[in-house]
Amino acid sequence: MMLVCPGCAQPRLLQAHVTTGQCPTMSRPQTPEQVLDNSRDYPPCKTDEDVGEGIQCSHRMLSFSDALLSIIATVMILPVTHTKISPEQQFDKSIQKLLATRIAVYLMTFLIVTVAWAAHTRLFQVVGKIDDTLALLNLACMMTITFLPYTFSLMVTFPDVPLGIFLFCMCVIAIGAVQALIVGYAFHFPHLLSPQIRCSAHGTRYWRHILCLVLQGPALCLAAAIFSLFFIPVSYLLMAMVVFLPYVSKAVGWCKDRLVGHVEPPAHQVEFFTFDLHEPLSKERVEAFSDGVYAIVATLLILDICEDNVPDPKDVTERFGGSLVAALGASGPRFLAYFGSFATVGLLWFAHHSLFLHVRKATRAMGLLNTLALAFVGGLPLAYQQTSAFARQPHDELERVRVSCAIIFLASIFQFAVWTSALLQPVDTLQPAVRFGGAEHALMFAKLALYPCASLVAFVATCLLGGFSTAIFHAMQVATPFAFLLLRLLLRLALAVLRGLQGLAWPVPPAPGPTGEPDMQSGLLSAPC
Amino acid sequence: MMLVCPGCAQPRLLQAHVTTGQCPTMSRPQTPEQVLDNSRDYPPCKTDEDVGEGIQCSHRMLSFSDALLSIIATVMILPVTHTKISPEQQFDKSIQKLLATRIAVYLMTFLIVTVAWAAHTRLFQVVGKIDDTLALLNLACMMTITFLPYTFSLMVTFPDVPLGIFLFCMCVIAIGAVQALIVGYAFHFPHLLSPQIRCSAHGTRYWRHILCLVLQGPALCLAAAIFSLFFIPVSYLLMAMVVFLPYVSKAVGWCKDRLVGHVEPPAHQVEFFTFDLHEPLSKERVEAFSDGVYAIVATLLILDICEDNVPDPKDVTERFGGSLVAALGASGPRFLAYFGSFATVGLLWFAHHSLFLHVRKATRAMGLLNTLALAFVGGLPLAYQQTSAFARQPHDELERVRVSCAIIFLASIFQFAVWTSALLQPVDTLQPAVRFGGAEHALMFAKLALYPCASLVAFVATCLLGGFSTAIFHAMQVATPFAFLLLRLLLRLALAVLRGLQGLAWPVPPAPGPTGEPDMQSGLLSAPC
Repeated sequence: MMLVCPGCAQPRLLQAHVTTGQCPTMSRPQTPEQVLDNSRDYPPCKTDEDVGEGIQCSHRMLSFSDALLSIIATVMILPVTHTKISPEQQFDKSIQKLLATRIAVYLMTFLIVTVAWAAHTRLFQVVGKIDDTLALLNLACMMTITFLPYTFSLMVTFPDVPLGIFLFCMCVIAIGAVQALIVGYAFHFPHLLSPQIRCSAHGTRYWRHILCLVLQGPALCLAAAIFSLFFIPVSYLLMAMVVFLPYVSKAVGWCKDRLVGHVEPPAHQVEFFTFDLHEPLSKERVEAFSDGVYAIVATLLILDICEDNVPDPKDVTERFGGSLVAALGASGPRFLAYFGSFATVGLLWFAHHSLFLHVRKATRAMGLLNTLALAFVGGLPLAYQQTSAFARQPHDELERVRVSCAIIFLASIFQFAVWTSALLQPVDTLQPAVRFGGAEHALMFAKLALYPCASLVAFVATCLLGGFSTAIFHAMQVATPFAFLLLRLLLRLALAVLRGLQGLAWPVPPAPGPTGEPDMQSGLLSAPC
Repeated sequence: MMLVCPGCAQPRLLQAHVTTGQCPTMSRPQTPEQVLDNSRDYPPCKTDEDVGEGIQCSHRMLSFSDALLSIIATVMILPVTHTKISPEQQFDKSIQKLLATRIAVYLMTFLIVTVAWAAHTRLFQVVGKIDDTLALLNLACMMTITFLPYTFSLMVTFPDVPLGIFLFCMCVIAIGAVQALIVGYAFHFPHLLSPQIRCSAHGTRYWRHILCLVLQGPALCLAAAIFSLFFIPVSYLLMAMVVFLPYVSKAVGWCKDRLVGHVEPPAHQVEFFTFDLHEPLSKERVEAFSDGVYAIVATLLILDICEDNVPDPKDVTERFGGSLVAALGASGPRFLAYFGSFATVGLLWFAHHSLFLHVRKATRAMGLLNTLALAFVGGLPLAYQQTSAFARQPHDELERVRVSCAIIFLASIFQFAVWTSALLQPVDTLQPAVRFGGAEHALMFAKLALYPCASLVAFVATCLLGGFSTAIFHAMQVATPFAFLLLRLLLRLALAVLRGLQGLAWPVPPAPGPTGEPDMQSGLLSAPC
């Protein structure tokens, strides 16, 4: 059954062989777009083969890396949620400043780790299979990445001390070095490369290009580390470039395309730059990373509850007269808030899950919007902590409810934006079944619009009825899950009502009955104009 | 291309059709073993199909559930690692008792959540596809499970108060109720069932059997909840049955088989009970759950470090004279310990990954051993915390190093046991390529034996050289990763030495050279006997 390709001595089961029927090395080389299109997903796995030579499918290692990276991305929300506000203290300027700094640190860390994750995704689109050495190198890479949040928060805490910047840059350089090692190793043993690149005639060019991609961030950081000794602002500028350059250049390119019209770049250039800029992210890895973030955010809350909210036996005897029910009742609002928060995270995951069922591949814009949505999802424990603090500090309730509504709104509106962005290029991004609108489109739209609308309504309601803000917020959190359950029903109802209204406004001419005469009943209902 | 089966109006791409060439409903029904064998893995996914009707592949939902469950399983290690021991306090009896209780709570929680996870796995081997309602029901199920650790620790903190037991039982009952709802819903819309069960002629029998399986734990817990009002010990007994009954009955069955000889039970019984007792766990889900545990354990440490170990600017000015280097140096041992701990978790994951590359399916015994291995892996943050406490409390160093060695030893020896257990039934459990021994077997053996040996050597060394215990432990942690990298080389060297020694002991007769004459060179090396 195993057909071997005469061109590259590879089994003909590979995508490139199946789709084109020819080996790329034998016939004309595939365009880089095709190459990337084929290497977009997790590499195909054959369980038995290759095990003998120690070569393994990279699927499980990538899932594990995704899980690690998603946890690391969300870790800096902990200092935010654990910010101590003593009961006497007002929600005043100094606390607000501290919180704002920590939130900024969290968001930046999230972006930085996401950039590292995207680089990792790109790297393992090139490296298709792994062996023991690569698995160990990947573990080393992961360990270096776990230090990123720490060095970053060190940098922010001591913005004027070169050491913080220096350590952060060293961390990025170490990641780059390990990734360069991985690239070098994989190109030294070409059977580890993804089949499309292995079969390509431009092996060395790819190699140089990928190495350049992997090392451009570390090179900028090296410059930043050197500048940190003389003139710190330049360092910050260089580091900002590492994070934002890909997006800025993409945006500039897009604007130029719109203004000047699309100019086909020379073939040589295409090969070099499409790899970076137009490459779609692997849908599977976007899903795995998002799942990790949702899972850790949903459970960060129960981690806290399990540790802090089991009442102390001595405390129960002294404060509550031995009544466990009373002791648990005292932390009742915390459980209510946990329920609301888990439901929100869970349902946002559900909307994300529904969304990605329809998606075929994720463009870079969708990746960025998804990252922003996830970053705000990571802020949900903050919303939870704000809500559960009600029980202790009744004042400032209004502001806290509003912050929570705003976080939920932002998290859900960016998810909505992912869908909108996918609709701009339906042929590239959507599954064929959902490209042409219809009921599934309407349902998807309703699912994604539910949370933005609910949080917006809650926000407006708190403005009108300030005194009931907590009650409104909790009602919103409890009602939304039921709205999801009844969504299909509600949608059908809404469409029927809409059609009914439409029918009243522009009545259709009576359809001829089976006997050829006008249908009297519908004729009676819709008055002739 | 789409062939539709005339028997069950399902696409003929399904496993059952492909392997037998016939629809089970048309021909003789498959044996339950075959059914289970086929439904063992994640259901096959076709991306486009079914999207229109709202029916979805369950793959991503299951990964998300696995991620959530693995985090919930490991959560109770936090109270253990965060046990406050003030610097003046000796590692005395009261602390030891507190720690022992918390460790017991952690281990029991881990087992309970694993039982819930196994039930979830079994349930979604029956339910092959999902729709929106099922996804939402599954989220509800997950949320109920997140309360298990909390109610369990409440129960342990107040062993004599019925409320703790009552809440725990209510939690189990709620999980059972949601799962029963899922079963009912799936059997009401049979297109959601796994194809083997949908095509089976014994639909209602399966339905009753699965419902019975799902509800037996909750039924026992209901009894326990009622007994908690009269006589608490009976409640504990009933709850212990929920966790241990499947394993005990399996062990009893195995012993009976050995003693009496295997008696083929009547066909009616097989169908009812094999589902429960002999069913192999889905390999993919075992991997996903294990990955989740490894990922969360590896990062629990960095969560702590990121939150607690960023020095306070005021502190740096006052205590370290403004020198950030000195301040970071003070928490240096923590970083060293983190490095060691991450390396240990990462390499244990690596060994697990290598092990499961060779595994085709996991028996129940392997599942149990894997759970135990994971439970001790979850204990590694404890080992870390013990190690990082050295810097502050130099006394009791010896005991702490020994505890760490013991945890690492237990985690790795149970992993080794998984492999041994797989070797007992190689035809069922291993990939065909590795069933017959050889170099890959030796390498696997070496990989799995590395950590047990290293921790044992470190333990013995601390007994002999008590004064250098910390140095020994750190040396072990740093040396093991390099040993993994050089493992293939070392193994080849060891085999060569072994062969050399064997050659000296029983020299082989000289092989005839290409010319037919005895090969003089090898003849010179191996003296004639």
